Amino acid sequence: MAEPFSYRQRVRYVECDALGVVFNAHYMSYMDQALTELFRGFGGYGRLLESGLDMMVVEARLRFFAPARFDDEIDMEVLVTHLGTTSMISRHRIRRRDELLMEGDLAHVWVQTATTAKTPIPDWARNGLAPWYDPAAATA
Amino acid sequence: MAEPFSYRQRVRYVECDALGVVFNAHYMSYMDQALTELFRGFGGYGRLLESGLDMMVVEARLRFFAPARFDDEIDMEVLVTHLGTTSMISRHRIRRRDELLMEGDLAHVWVQTATTAKTPIPDWARNGLAPWYDPAAATA
Amino acid sequence: MAEPFSYRQRVRYVECDALGVVFNAHYMSYMDQALTELFRGFGGYGRLLESGLDMMVVEARLRFFAPARFDDEIDMEVLVTHLGTTSMISRHRIRRRDELLMEGDLAHVWVQTATTAKTPIPDWARNGLAPWYDPAAATA
Amino acid sequence: MAEPFSYRQRVRYVECDALGVVFNAHYMSYMDQALTELFRGFGGYGRLLESGLDMMVVEARLRFFAPARFDDEIDMEVLVTHLGTTSMISRHRIRRRDELLMEGDLAHVWVQTATTAKTPIPDWARNGLAPWYDPAAATA
Repeated sequence: MAEPFSYRQRVRYVECDALGVVFNAHYMSYMDQALTELFRGFGGYGRLLESGLDMMVVEARLRFFAPARFDDEIDMEVLVTHLGTTSMISRHRIRRRDELLMEGDLAHVWVQTATTAKTPIPDWARNGLAPWYDPAAATA
Repeated sequence: MAEPFSYRQRVRYVECDALGVVFNAHYMSYMDQALTELFRGFGGYGRLLESGLDMMVVEARLRFFAPARFDDEIDMEVLVTHLGTTSMISRHRIRRRDELLMEGDLAHVWVQTATTAKTPIPDWARNGLAPWYDPAAATA
Repeated sequence: MAEPFSYRQRVRYVECDALGVVFNAHYMSYMDQALTELFRGFGGYGRLLESGLDMMVVEARLRFFAPARFDDEIDMEVLVTHLGTTSMISRHRIRRRDELLMEGDLAHVWVQTATTAKTPIPDWARNGLAPWYDPAAATA
Repeated sequence: MAEPFSYRQRVRYVECDALGVVFNAHYMSYMDQALTELFRGFGGYGRLLESGLDMMVVEARLRFFAPARFDDEIDMEVLVTHLGTTSMISRHRIRRRDELLMEGDLAHVWVQTATTAKTPIPDWARNGLAPWYDPAAATA
């Protein structure tokens, strides 16, 4: 399997609920952030937006194994498990050191910002995503 | 199929992103709110917490069909599609009038708050959830 | 003093922190919501935006007296304490029944959305805000 | 004047509103984060909580000069401008390179977590805060 892209950050106080753990909705935002950081390596969302393109989440799946807590350092990992003509699936894992906290998948379609019509993933993005592409990760 | 429990509210400005639509993470919170309102009918989360119990999300799945926008009135529907000994699955639909915006499923396990050990769903909750129980909704 | 505009809602689980109380940042959003509801009475933010106008917060002040908790019903009150040519100050109070939880002030300037240049508050808004205008509330 | 404590981070997509700028409520959370990072230098909030203590915000003031945008790197600066027996005021500035985006003040009281009774700031915290103490910053 390919090495996942990985980005480390700390859990914020505002993200923790009355049980002192990260409220589940924030993991959706964590996955979004991890993709933002992955894209930074080849032009970033900025290049996407300047091209008149955008990505829309059409499906998300999250499995929770253990809670993250305030001020934990968490590693947010991403691999791309599907790259279709207009669609893309990413597999996300969030860890605290060796402990797996969450595993999730996001399915995006690429669209023209102006019309939200589906549009092919451009070559510059396809090339930029290539190092993180590993379809086998989807079944790991 | 059973009629779903339904709760209406408005989209807040803080929930909308740079595209003027609700950011996907907030739908997780919407589903949580819908369950809170459903539980209100038979004692609420308060009764749960006073019993030394809690519910943990172990899996979530969301499918997005159309975006909600600032100030939209949205209807958040819930049905319970699985009621096991210690686990429960709910099916959520979010609509704007007749338009389906999102469909999602949440799987919870019931736990002892103090230990987070799995614990049977108590009868008062099982009875309270009964009117909204419809396993057929999971495949609808 | 004028009767304030008032809007009631419940505290959401996602808004509560590890102490089980509403995290302070969410009160800024509560004040924003109260203004949205006040504006609804005379065309709403929709009319504002369609006019090519927007409102920018330039200053905020919040004083906290007691915390709101999960599922509390809170009343979010607003009065307009200053209506200048291009600027407006609102005084907000958030209560749980008779208990004052927070008091705050928001200063907005009205701008042209396209340029963010300051622009006079239009008459339709000035008239719509009139029932809630009470400069004496600022020193109460 | 003392050099402020400073912490750099990026604006997240989830924090941006329909105008593409950070929604004002998130600046309250930014100020909280900056204090968390400042405390990390001398034991952190962890040490605070283990001592049975907590800090409650009693007043906040924010002045907004220019908006932060998605993916901006922002520097969150803090100085302590008042250190009383049980209370503390911090002055916060948020910059994007040389541009001042926000200036704010937070007033906290130190409390016993169990009772929320006011309690003296312990010496370890007073010493830890000393390098960042500059009362003159309050009037700068």
